[in-house]
Amino acid sequence: MTTTTQFDNVSLTTKANVYFDGKCVSHSFTLADGTKKSVGVVLASSLTFGTGAAEIMECVGGGCEYKLAGTDVWVKQSEGDRFSVPGNSKFDIRVAEAYHYICHYA
Amino acid sequence: MTTTTQFDNVSLTTKANVYFDGKCVSHSFTLADGTKKSVGVVLASSLTFGTGAAEIMECVGGGCEYKLAGTDVWVKQSEGDRFSVPGNSKFDIRVAEAYHYICHYA
Repeated sequence: MTTTTQFDNVSLTTKANVYFDGKCVSHSFTLADGTKKSVGVVLASSLTFGTGAAEIMECVGGGCEYKLAGTDVWVKQSEGDRFSVPGNSKFDIRVAEAYHYICHYA
Repeated sequence: MTTTTQFDNVSLTTKANVYFDGKCVSHSFTLADGTKKSVGVVLASSLTFGTGAAEIMECVGGGCEYKLAGTDVWVKQSEGDRFSVPGNSKFDIRVAEAYHYICHYA
């Protein structure tokens, strides 16, 4: 699958979202049709993220391993890969260097 | 001075710029007229940044103290404040929690 390197015609929120003491930093933006997304990076760490809405995580650089709630399988992700996370759920993520992502709300 | 909370109609690069082991993370974007800028955050740290082009740093959240090359004065910045840095120069920055910024190229 190809990597989304750029979004055009978006409204970008200037203040970052900082999670886990800066191990995850993202910026939120809105497409022309009102769809909300964010771009971010997870730095070297092992973290657990919770979801509100369902999400599709798209890797746009670096990589990670993730494990969805209720599973025992760590799955590797690299540039161009995507995975889906149900709403009101969580997933574990392990990052060795950096995992650059787009968070799409499904 | 008011804070720029959002930019409309921009092209956003999805992969982050990660500096100083993640102590600074930014995302680059381009305005409709071709002007390049970035939004980012510096986390708790003391760092020295170099400039290529001249920059105007605008604080959009949190704060910092900075000291321009060739000066001995630490200057405090908080939301809405801006400072200018000459091209091919550098500045020191001290951040206690987080400094959210827009980098405008002057």
